[in-house]
Amino acid sequence: MTRTGRLRVHTMSMSLDGFVAGPDQSLDEPLGVGAMHLLHGWMFGTQRFRDLDEAEGREPADALDEEAVDAGFEGIGAWILGRNMFGPVRGDWGDGSWQGWWGEDPPYHCDVFVLTHHPRPPLEMAGGTTFHFVTDGIHATLDRAREAAGGLDVRLGGGAATVRQYLAAHLVDDLRYAVVPVLLGRGERLFESLDDLPAAYRVASVRQSSTVLHVHVERAV
Amino acid sequence: MTRTGRLRVHTMSMSLDGFVAGPDQSLDEPLGVGAMHLLHGWMFGTQRFRDLDEAEGREPADALDEEAVDAGFEGIGAWILGRNMFGPVRGDWGDGSWQGWWGEDPPYHCDVFVLTHHPRPPLEMAGGTTFHFVTDGIHATLDRAREAAGGLDVRLGGGAATVRQYLAAHLVDDLRYAVVPVLLGRGERLFESLDDLPAAYRVASVRQSSTVLHVHVERAV
Ligand SMILES: NC(=O)c1ccc[n+]([C@@H]2O[C@H](COP(=O)([O-])OP(=O)(O)OC[C@H]3O[C@@H](n4cnc5c(N)ncnc54)[C@H](OP(=O)(O)O)[C@@H]3O)[C@@H](O)[C@H]2O)c1
Ligand SMILES: NC(=O)c1ccc[n+]([C@@H]2O[C@H](COP(=O)([O-])OP(=O)(O)OC[C@H]3O[C@@H](n4cnc5c(N)ncnc54)[C@H](OP(=O)(O)O)[C@@H]3O)[C@@H](O)[C@H]2O)c1
Repeated sequence: MTRTGRLRVHTMSMSLDGFVAGPDQSLDEPLGVGAMHLLHGWMFGTQRFRDLDEAEGREPADALDEEAVDAGFEGIGAWILGRNMFGPVRGDWGDGSWQGWWGEDPPYHCDVFVLTHHPRPPLEMAGGTTFHFVTDGIHATLDRAREAAGGLDVRLGGGAATVRQYLAAHLVDDLRYAVVPVLLGRGERLFESLDDLPAAYRVASVRQSSTVLHVHVERAV
Repeated sequence: MTRTGRLRVHTMSMSLDGFVAGPDQSLDEPLGVGAMHLLHGWMFGTQRFRDLDEAEGREPADALDEEAVDAGFEGIGAWILGRNMFGPVRGDWGDGSWQGWWGEDPPYHCDVFVLTHHPRPPLEMAGGTTFHFVTDGIHATLDRAREAAGGLDVRLGGGAATVRQYLAAHLVDDLRYAVVPVLLGRGERLFESLDDLPAAYRVASVRQSSTVLHVHVERAV
């Protein structure tokens, strides 16, 4: 029997006031108004981001930041995303021309399971990434992702609503996020209606880099 | 003309999930169920707390923690508290036998203004502390506290609801709090319905001690 992969969250970015996305998400501002740079700026100096075109001229990142970003790609065999993470299209998929934020060769290189209430055929991209649109809930989605991962771990990529559901069901094994020293005022909270969280999770570590506070929360039971 | 004192918040303690008090506050558990030790434990090793009876056998605190606690007593000429900070009595004051959590000689040694909707005569305690019960809102209370402070600063001691009101009105000059690496699940949030905060405040510093993350937020405009 193959090992059952763990379900892991990495590099979510949270403002001091608790928001992981700003308000009013749109095509131009996928994280909500003004939030992308404020929340994720700490990642832009890491090697993984510098390897992308847009990273030119950025300051090299802190070693802890590098480590946090790299850890999110180690031992991952499949991903789960909420539908809003996949894109700004809401409701029916329309002509199906939206193929995700990431262009022809998305950085997943494995099966990616997108939670949605709106069925859509799988979307095979270059580089080994296939998006599967799953309409039967978080448990079925996790089962399928685990099977696809073949013993490796499953990464839960967000967004807020999706991670919250898996946390509420105590299905996340490992939650790593970064507290960014900014205030957003409003947006999407990660820690909302998770009254029962302390019963099942404990804080494994908090480590300050030169940019953010890296928090590691793990399931205790 | 005397200098107008600043309004300062110090050593609030916030869980990673954003709560500054647990649920179900009561006489036995003033911070709500289980929250006192979890949230404020980092302070118990500081000199100021070790000087109290109950502090025996505690580990000495980190220098940053000492500094954070001490800073809250420097240059303060008056305090403002919300009524729930003053005690667990709700509604009418009844026979007025409740005189605060702190015994005959409270650690304020100055005028303390308690926000409430329920009038009550001033309460003069030993050591120079007088509790004034103010029923005409946050602005009038701040005016009175500033006058009493005679050019020194005013410390806003909590609780959550009271600090939130002064923050919403952009009347707090300096907010210092500690993020404690615990999860509470539910309770009172500090950052709630403060949509407009980023317009007036900026994060001045975040510094990790061996126990907590010390955050300093200041008014920018
Ligand atoms: N700060 C960070 O580190 C970080 C990380 C990741 C994402 N984000 C941000 O988070 C935001 C997206 O998060 P979000 O909370 O808006 O949404 P999300 O979790 O990405 O997606 C929510 C949507 O997914 C579908 N869905 C979720 N659970 C489902 C279920 N059990 N069954 C069926 N469908 C389900 C629903 O779409 P339908 O009903 O429409 O199909 C739902 O509206 C974006 O702004 C993103 O950029 C931030
Ligand atoms: N984590 C920390 O560092 C920290 C620090 C301080 C306090 N706390 C905790 O916070 C909790 C108390 O906070 P809280 O949010 O429950 O209450 P609070 O702010 O202490 O008191 C709220 C009460 O004060 C009165 N009040 C507030 N604003 C008023 C106004 N504008 N006009 C008239 N009356 C006003 C009202 O009482 P009435 O209408 O009944 O008169 C109101 O219910 C306690 O659990 C305390 O231990 C935590």
